[in-house]
Amino acid sequence: MSSFSIGVDLGGTNLRVAAYTYSSGLLETILLPTRLAAGRHAVVEDMCQAIRKLRSTYAMQRELIGVGIGTPGPLELPAGRLHNPPNLPGWDGFELRVEVENCLDMPVAVESDANVAALAECVLGSGRTLGIDSLCMLTLGTGIGNGIILNGKVWHGAHGMAGEAGHINIWPNGPACGCGSQGCLEMYASATAVRRIALEAAASGDAPAIAALAKANPDFSTRDLSDLAEKGSPDAKKIFEDVGWALGIGIGDLVNTLNLPLYVVGGGLANAWSLFSPTLIAEARRRSYVYRLTEPGSAILDGHSNAGTRIIAAELGADSGLLGACILPYTMAAATENIPLSS
Amino acid sequence: MSSFSIGVDLGGTNLRVAAYTYSSGLLETILLPTRLAAGRHAVVEDMCQAIRKLRSTYAMQRELIGVGIGTPGPLELPAGRLHNPPNLPGWDGFELRVEVENCLDMPVAVESDANVAALAECVLGSGRTLGIDSLCMLTLGTGIGNGIILNGKVWHGAHGMAGEAGHINIWPNGPACGCGSQGCLEMYASATAVRRIALEAAASGDAPAIAALAKANPDFSTRDLSDLAEKGSPDAKKIFEDVGWALGIGIGDLVNTLNLPLYVVGGGLANAWSLFSPTLIAEARRRSYVYRLTEPGSAILDGHSNAGTRIIAAELGADSGLLGACILPYTMAAATENIPLSS
Repeated sequence: MSSFSIGVDLGGTNLRVAAYTYSSGLLETILLPTRLAAGRHAVVEDMCQAIRKLRSTYAMQRELIGVGIGTPGPLELPAGRLHNPPNLPGWDGFELRVEVENCLDMPVAVESDANVAALAECVLGSGRTLGIDSLCMLTLGTGIGNGIILNGKVWHGAHGMAGEAGHINIWPNGPACGCGSQGCLEMYASATAVRRIALEAAASGDAPAIAALAKANPDFSTRDLSDLAEKGSPDAKKIFEDVGWALGIGIGDLVNTLNLPLYVVGGGLANAWSLFSPTLIAEARRRSYVYRLTEPGSAILDGHSNAGTRIIAAELGADSGLLGACILPYTMAAATENIPLSS
Repeated sequence: MSSFSIGVDLGGTNLRVAAYTYSSGLLETILLPTRLAAGRHAVVEDMCQAIRKLRSTYAMQRELIGVGIGTPGPLELPAGRLHNPPNLPGWDGFELRVEVENCLDMPVAVESDANVAALAECVLGSGRTLGIDSLCMLTLGTGIGNGIILNGKVWHGAHGMAGEAGHINIWPNGPACGCGSQGCLEMYASATAVRRIALEAAASGDAPAIAALAKANPDFSTRDLSDLAEKGSPDAKKIFEDVGWALGIGIGDLVNTLNLPLYVVGGGLANAWSLFSPTLIAEARRRSYVYRLTEPGSAILDGHSNAGTRIIAAELGADSGLLGACILPYTMAAATENIPLSS
């Protein structure tokens, strides 16, 4: 009998639950609102109802390999416990894994949303395309999510909290970050940061096109701003160039530390890749001698141009979190392996 | 028959070659000058003569497991080729592994000096004491060396160049670094940086005690400076506090990214641990919410105080590089495993 998995993409706004096979991809997706106001137990109940529905539909022809859940973090592993997740207010200390397991009466795998997105990008996206099984992914959204995949497995670290490179230092005395530090990458290259910087530019009086946009549409999106940049506004262009500058410093740090073969930028703001990637690559080259030595075409690679260090936009789009949750059960045994807890 | 290994600590000044067993430690150490002026082939010949001497002495009672060499980097792996090593001028492109193998007619394992020091600290030093098999070590010397051990193995990355966290960004517009970037950790927390900062303080006219030291002894060491700080000089104290500040930012980045259980600071400057560690820990706490969540005694650990994230001074001293080279052959098969080269 062939197998299938069920994946859950738990977001602050939407809840997506899907049945999946490696050969056919997503068989069916159930889309629900995340009823935060009804309380966390109601959300878990909605989730489990959708999982049961998919299980009863597909478990006749196929064997259910397992259930995977991608959740906003911070998530403590292996416990599967949430710690003050900014996108799930009121869920501090919630035992997500245990609650869902009790509700379904079966084991489930939980993982942070940034980690499942990175896993999907590695197994089904640019990692597969390039034949690479280690990567670092940055997801540029409200904040900056980060997932690190080493040899095909999510790198969890000692307490399940690895992959917070969105809080790498860019400027030690920069803007205060929600994490308690200041000048983090997230304060320069998230969608939230881009809007903040655009509003500052508008208020300064030196960026009339951005000021006009903000006046016409106070809820303007980063897409509106990138449209403005693509129409030629130098002030809007400058904002994306500065996003690339900060990402270049952050990714330069990651290249110097980890020397992974692949760095992937995803999330909504990655739509503006063509606007920020030139400064990103230039800054990473300037900051990281490991990148200069190993970028595609460099001397050290002896002509093996395929083996260079790549910094690219994500191949998978908004489905990466859901797809990653779906493949999580297939890698479940492996995913709990690399947690080097002390004795 | 019991086994032994031979380890080589190749430095820019000294060449140390030792026979070693796990049970007895260093059996015999041969200390030679590194004859850089005589050329790299002469140095390899000196090294191989010492290795042959130890081999013939000990191979009668014991089986030789292998030969391990720790070398200044950058070192490309698995090739074992050097790339413009600042501490071995004239050795750019030198095929160290192949040259030594040809000279000895047996396979050898090569590794950067920072990686063998980290391996020794993990297997024989603080990692063993704490029962931890993953760590990140920073060696504060002329520059800042870095080695990352994951699950008991050196993490090499895609091209053998992982572990250059000495070049993590601290201040984007800081002093120019030899690596081509500016404001790297190495520019704030290496022995070279401490001397530069002390000379700047002396020249400023605001640090009379340091100016007096520099006048009395223009070649003053970081030890002279830490003696001054321990005698109470506020200007000298400030310099070490600032070293801690930079290390706290850099280690905060590493905690956020990797969530390893152990960060170890070694090298000559680590003698001043008591002078810089208070600001180091305070700054890491401020910068890294992962550290705050997981430091010993934090709520998340559920009373398992042994399992927290530790930032400590190295347990092994100046022998760590030699010891790491000695244990390298024992971990040789494992050490080449985690190189995720693309297809």
